[in-house]
Amino acid sequence: MKIALDAMGGDNAPAATVQGGIDAARIGDGSYEVVFVGNRELIEIEIEKHRFVSNLPISIVHASEQIDMDESPAVALKRKPDASIVVAQRLQRENKVQAVVSAGNTGAVMASAHFILGRLRHVHRPAICSLLPSSQGIVCLIDVGANIDCKPRNLMQFGIMGSIYMSRIIGIENPKVGLLNIGEERNKGNDLTVQAYDLLEKSPINFCGNVEGRDVLKGVTDVVVCDGFIGNILLKFAESVGGMLSFHMKRYIGKKLLYNLGAFLLKPTFRGLRKIMSYEEYGGVPLLGVNGIVIIGHGRSTPKAVTNAILEAAKMVEARVNDQIEKEMQLANGEELVVKEA
Amino acid sequence: MKIALDAMGGDNAPAATVQGGIDAARIGDGSYEVVFVGNRELIEIEIEKHRFVSNLPISIVHASEQIDMDESPAVALKRKPDASIVVAQRLQRENKVQAVVSAGNTGAVMASAHFILGRLRHVHRPAICSLLPSSQGIVCLIDVGANIDCKPRNLMQFGIMGSIYMSRIIGIENPKVGLLNIGEERNKGNDLTVQAYDLLEKSPINFCGNVEGRDVLKGVTDVVVCDGFIGNILLKFAESVGGMLSFHMKRYIGKKLLYNLGAFLLKPTFRGLRKIMSYEEYGGVPLLGVNGIVIIGHGRSTPKAVTNAILEAAKMVEARVNDQIEKEMQLANGEELVVKEA
Repeated sequence: MKIALDAMGGDNAPAATVQGGIDAARIGDGSYEVVFVGNRELIEIEIEKHRFVSNLPISIVHASEQIDMDESPAVALKRKPDASIVVAQRLQRENKVQAVVSAGNTGAVMASAHFILGRLRHVHRPAICSLLPSSQGIVCLIDVGANIDCKPRNLMQFGIMGSIYMSRIIGIENPKVGLLNIGEERNKGNDLTVQAYDLLEKSPINFCGNVEGRDVLKGVTDVVVCDGFIGNILLKFAESVGGMLSFHMKRYIGKKLLYNLGAFLLKPTFRGLRKIMSYEEYGGVPLLGVNGIVIIGHGRSTPKAVTNAILEAAKMVEARVNDQIEKEMQLANGEELVVKEA
Repeated sequence: MKIALDAMGGDNAPAATVQGGIDAARIGDGSYEVVFVGNRELIEIEIEKHRFVSNLPISIVHASEQIDMDESPAVALKRKPDASIVVAQRLQRENKVQAVVSAGNTGAVMASAHFILGRLRHVHRPAICSLLPSSQGIVCLIDVGANIDCKPRNLMQFGIMGSIYMSRIIGIENPKVGLLNIGEERNKGNDLTVQAYDLLEKSPINFCGNVEGRDVLKGVTDVVVCDGFIGNILLKFAESVGGMLSFHMKRYIGKKLLYNLGAFLLKPTFRGLRKIMSYEEYGGVPLLGVNGIVIIGHGRSTPKAVTNAILEAAKMVEARVNDQIEKEMQLANGEELVVKEA
């Protein structure tokens, strides 16, 4: 198995990506090769900073351009046909690699996947699925930004893809799926959620009805389905909570000796909490529904996050997530036809 | 000034409401009267449990019915013309009281306000504004549930009402107003946000552009405008964060002696954090834009929350918030006409 890493993507590239890629190659222990895609010269300079790399399963594919974080994805893709993310996706389309990992411009990663890889059969809209810590372990929020305006059947498909991800990758049996809404009753919400409720109910997944904002972190369901507008806002909000709390905490603790002693004793606890809330542990978020494996890393990805994103990509290839998605989508579309005909 | 309290509203009514009302009457020290609306007999029994109440500015208006938390607001309002919340709103319409506070069925509070009080001049849609703690102090999120589907001009009006609330009630000069979106650029988001951006920009408030999910708790702006669907989900999500964190914290601390000592030393800090995140401190959320003052309390309102809700109602009456809303709405509508004609 070969996994392409967009070596130029992310705020800390190529230093962080190369280190993360090398670490992933070590951990993989020969089960996959990491293909660095980007400026060969810069990548080689970074690789030379590391020791014991001569026998590692790593390689480089040169790409002369790169798309910056603040570029318009549509414009950049047209103007830069040799951008690292474009070259990486092309390698995947030609089956020279089996997955692509990038912490670069999210819009460009999505657009390149869409145009170069295309969608899986039966999938109307790819979606990004993100993991959040919950009282029950972790919960998957889907979509968190790929689709601003959604139709009911998009939400149904998000539910199916999220369910497959949680079962195949996270190992949860028969994952519970909830629809994010403002009340539990089936007639609550807007036209979109009311219609999506009906479709999700008929789909071949373990749909448990509506969940409210307060249910997400409680882990009432393993998957929470929403459109990409609200999912993106909720995810970014959740990521900011830790910072706000530690801000207030530090202000309270101030210079009081006993408080500082208390904080010192609880340091491992705080470290644990930070780990729970950290995106580093998850590494990246998969773009589900495209005809390939694409993991989108955080723009501020550290080497550790890059490593974890590559491990996740390898797991997704092994678990044949896409085969399962096509299979279940076909089933669900059949159900949808039956619903429409009835 | 007289403030009607729906004595039958909320999970802990009438015990919590009567106690909260009595405490508010004491604090008010004669500046307003608390009018308990509900079953006279039950209210009198509760009042008798308290001492030194004979000289307090409190009174009772009997209402033979009450709307339960799980009743359909529309149905209940028709079937129960003598429900406590209906009687209270009617008192306000007849100017026998100047404000209504209720921790009862939120839908019924909104619907009764809508039908009995009506809207302020120039206001298209009333909205609920809620306060969240931020790194800068507090931030106002509007709307958090009154309007599921919104038009651009509704969002503009929410921005104006939120701005007036933060300036007149919270005392922030020239409050910064942001539009909740998935990116900072003005063309980001869906049709609703793109059009609302234009209107907010022309409106007579300190509009600072789009804010993302991560900016809310940072206090990047003092007011965050959104539709009631996303606002409701975000608010409930935020309210659940504390519980999730303390769950994980307790699990970490477990039975380890040193961790427990640390937690003991930090108790005041945790208490402070809880206070920051507690709805009790704010008491209730105002329904802005109706022709009257309406404060909606949390269904699980404690006596302290009820007291704070009454204090807030008194403040809103004194600050003449509604006069200001009508004035600025007229200005903004004029601007809107100019924009349309241009």
